[in-house]
Amino acid sequence: MATQVQALYDFSGEPGTTEMSITSGEVLTLINTEIGEGWWEGRNSKGETGLFPAAYVRKMTQDESAPTKMAPAAPRYDQAADDWGDQQYSAGDSNYQRGASHEDGWDDDWDDDTYSEIGPGPQQNKPPLNPQPLAPLPGMPISDYNQHIEDTASTFSSVGTVRKSKFAPSSKVSGESYLLGTLNVEVSDSEKVYIVQDEDGYSWAPISQPYHVTVASPKKESKFKGIKSFIAYQLTPSFNNIQVSRRYKHFDWLHERLQEKFTLIPIPPLPDKQISGRYDEQLIERRRVQLQEFVDWMCKHPVLSKSEVWQHFLTCTDEKRWKAGKRQAERDNLLGLNYCVSLVVPEKALLHSQVEVVTEQCYTFIGSMDSSVKLLTNMCLAQTKRFQGPYKTDCQKTGEAFYNLGNALSLDEGTIVSTSKLTSAIKMTGGAYIEIGKMYEDQPKYDFEPLGDKFHLYKGIVGSFPDCLGNHKAAVQKKRECERLTNEQKMEIAQLNEIKRRTDVISYALLAEINHFKTERTVDIKATMQKFLKQQITFYKKIVDKLEGALHQYDD
Amino acid sequence: MATQVQALYDFSGEPGTTEMSITSGEVLTLINTEIGEGWWEGRNSKGETGLFPAAYVRKMTQDESAPTKMAPAAPRYDQAADDWGDQQYSAGDSNYQRGASHEDGWDDDWDDDTYSEIGPGPQQNKPPLNPQPLAPLPGMPISDYNQHIEDTASTFSSVGTVRKSKFAPSSKVSGESYLLGTLNVEVSDSEKVYIVQDEDGYSWAPISQPYHVTVASPKKESKFKGIKSFIAYQLTPSFNNIQVSRRYKHFDWLHERLQEKFTLIPIPPLPDKQISGRYDEQLIERRRVQLQEFVDWMCKHPVLSKSEVWQHFLTCTDEKRWKAGKRQAERDNLLGLNYCVSLVVPEKALLHSQVEVVTEQCYTFIGSMDSSVKLLTNMCLAQTKRFQGPYKTDCQKTGEAFYNLGNALSLDEGTIVSTSKLTSAIKMTGGAYIEIGKMYEDQPKYDFEPLGDKFHLYKGIVGSFPDCLGNHKAAVQKKRECERLTNEQKMEIAQLNEIKRRTDVISYALLAEINHFKTERTVDIKATMQKFLKQQITFYKKIVDKLEGALHQYDD
Repeated sequence: MATQVQALYDFSGEPGTTEMSITSGEVLTLINTEIGEGWWEGRNSKGETGLFPAAYVRKMTQDESAPTKMAPAAPRYDQAADDWGDQQYSAGDSNYQRGASHEDGWDDDWDDDTYSEIGPGPQQNKPPLNPQPLAPLPGMPISDYNQHIEDTASTFSSVGTVRKSKFAPSSKVSGESYLLGTLNVEVSDSEKVYIVQDEDGYSWAPISQPYHVTVASPKKESKFKGIKSFIAYQLTPSFNNIQVSRRYKHFDWLHERLQEKFTLIPIPPLPDKQISGRYDEQLIERRRVQLQEFVDWMCKHPVLSKSEVWQHFLTCTDEKRWKAGKRQAERDNLLGLNYCVSLVVPEKALLHSQVEVVTEQCYTFIGSMDSSVKLLTNMCLAQTKRFQGPYKTDCQKTGEAFYNLGNALSLDEGTIVSTSKLTSAIKMTGGAYIEIGKMYEDQPKYDFEPLGDKFHLYKGIVGSFPDCLGNHKAAVQKKRECERLTNEQKMEIAQLNEIKRRTDVISYALLAEINHFKTERTVDIKATMQKFLKQQITFYKKIVDKLEGALHQYDD
Repeated sequence: MATQVQALYDFSGEPGTTEMSITSGEVLTLINTEIGEGWWEGRNSKGETGLFPAAYVRKMTQDESAPTKMAPAAPRYDQAADDWGDQQYSAGDSNYQRGASHEDGWDDDWDDDTYSEIGPGPQQNKPPLNPQPLAPLPGMPISDYNQHIEDTASTFSSVGTVRKSKFAPSSKVSGESYLLGTLNVEVSDSEKVYIVQDEDGYSWAPISQPYHVTVASPKKESKFKGIKSFIAYQLTPSFNNIQVSRRYKHFDWLHERLQEKFTLIPIPPLPDKQISGRYDEQLIERRRVQLQEFVDWMCKHPVLSKSEVWQHFLTCTDEKRWKAGKRQAERDNLLGLNYCVSLVVPEKALLHSQVEVVTEQCYTFIGSMDSSVKLLTNMCLAQTKRFQGPYKTDCQKTGEAFYNLGNALSLDEGTIVSTSKLTSAIKMTGGAYIEIGKMYEDQPKYDFEPLGDKFHLYKGIVGSFPDCLGNHKAAVQKKRECERLTNEQKMEIAQLNEIKRRTDVISYALLAEINHFKTERTVDIKATMQKFLKQQITFYKKIVDKLEGALHQYDD
């Protein structure tokens, strides 16, 4: 019997193409899963056949018939898997020809996770990102559990009110089993991550073997004999000097894994999808720069830089190994707070008040920093537009006015030699201003764009910080709940102490991360500002040079 | 019997004031001519009394009764005469109190020749500026005269088509009597102006005693105990070092005299009235600069610099002498081409073809120069606005974004000393950009405004040149007409030769003026461009300095 699939979301097929519209809940018969690029072919109950996004449907078991309301955990990973195996489409396969006609909209390297561009998708149907209260503690009476629910809810609610939604922990928070000590995982020594005390407070143990990775020469590659083209970035880690080729969707997959796993560490952002245009060289270069920023931040982070999924991403060159590593990463059970089982922290118990001072200051700082980095990235964007638009045009108009004067004067040249020299000087002055106009157009890529790229990074990190703080806050709240239970003699002191200890581990991780962010940004922002100012100085000096060149034309 | 005046133009009195509306042709009885500021008081036929502009009426002779259609030669000079005698209004005179209430609209220093701001006036009613054909030659038969009229008209008409109306000679062309030899005036040696031949062609004999005049410290003066205030400019000629105080209306009167008298010499323009605002210091300073440009051009001109009316304007400090000189200037009978009786030119007869080459080139050049100087003055205006508006704002926004970052970072200052230093450096970077914004606002007064003022001068001169060329062309056409008459034996050869000789004098004057303009502008525009570029270079160097100052804040 043919495989049946059920539509999870509505999809509006593009009229006049081989696409077919499907409606959430609709059951279709699968005809062909080898279309590629995330497309499947199927037949609906009316007998119509057509293509639809594979991620929009789920395969049904034979005896299944009722539609499900549950959205898949991450429907696009399946598609990404399909995308990876380019060789599965032979040149003579007529199926991919059909699929190819839809690629621009669907399998865009940069857009393939924005389902909303095609129709409503998982993003819209996902459960809201409200905090999910932790499950009842083992052995807790129902009445206490209700109270617990209420307390937890009010904690989150107060957070939500003061810090707004961005401060609510993300739905990816997991790790309850770690906190409650029910997680039964052995962590090998090599996987252990140390937090140490130094003059700055608590820090991640420094990277033992620092390395860097260059993101270079984005290449436009094609498959399907050129029907489908995409951008692949070449990554070369310094520790092995072996180049790997990665597309945006690979970065995107990696980013998802990192966000799932490290809920106390803000993951640096990927390039802004709002950069429009696709194959314009400048835009591709901007994305490369933003990817380089992402990679740099990863390499400099003591925890992230040695995470398994990142190492896999950086080094895997074999497709089978890639798939295996991918599956392993997706099955990782040390996600969220559970990751803390890998941490080795100082023996000393933390003072709650001390942690609170630091986190409160961090809340305030991050809130202020958030608007500041947005202001900066907007300013960089605006200045880039100004330089490339009106500033350039104004210079050129100035130049044209002078050039025009030179032309007018040359109509009356005759016996006076100096008139001719003057005319030429005036025309060259006009030329200088026109060239300065071009300099204005060219300049942002040296100053405002890199500055904007840098603060794009900070915008992402700063934007993720509230989640990290919120996740920590939720754990602290959980610990308080246990303290209350212990006071009410509903929990053993020994168990509470274990929970306290593990809450401290979580706090140590947050403190180390806050510290890491401070140390990194201090060095990084300083270098950024210096670089920016140097470029600006060079630019205005070049203007001075141009104008001095023009001035010398008037010398006798 | 009371003096009767007749309204020459309609005047709409401001309702609710002591002003009275009058209608062209209406006869009024004069009550008071001592109101001042160009106002007279009168009674109309209905017995109503009120004030009206003296320049809008003419005094009638006793036996006169019919209205005249002729516009007065220059109705506002009477008003200017009234304006000069400030002391004629004693503080206790109730009449000027009434007059004072209308001064802002009427007796504005800068607006008092724009009758149109109050109501229709002489400007509207003036005969159109069409060329007035010269009168028939003495002894010419009517039929020939008709032909003459037609030829002359077609000459002007062809000029009018090709060069548009600006190339039609102005209505002020006079001097027919000179050309026809009927002018019987003795010119003293001291009044004679020489045209000489040098390496550049024909030139005005150089100025024997060069001088300059500074236009300094515009002052806001008042009369009527402060009810009326105006700006007076202080002029100090270098030849006597005696300061005179002149208001705009004095300049305006002078300008009218110069334009009447020198129809082959473009008179430099007065400040642009379109500069808005009155007592704003910057605008007053702009006007001073433009007046200085006017004065400089006058001083450097061999003919204008020694003209009697200019000398009177520059030196007269006594009111009685002023009035006498004023009357004399207004009675000057050597206006227009008649002025050429003062010229002493080389004996050599000019080749018509040679003159035509030069004037045709000048036509072409002036046409091109006209659009060029307009483009330049508009560019200067636009750049000034850009610098003072968006450029300034953009810098300040950039500065604010940095400053804001510094503030955000300072919220998280603590144990790391360098953060504090970095924060301070970032704030100072923000401050540097805000200061650069202020520099942008301030800059145009050093570069684009003076450049615009200079090209305002050229715009005026270039705009007047077509009239000069047209006046010359009309004389040449007249000569041709006489040649035809001689060919037809309707004019004596001797008379024709006299006319040819005088046409040559006119041509010599034009050639000298074309040459003067070329020589002057070559030196002047070169200096202007150098000055402009130097100011621009200084400006961008200052930006570099500011940014380098900011950059050094990041030094360890």
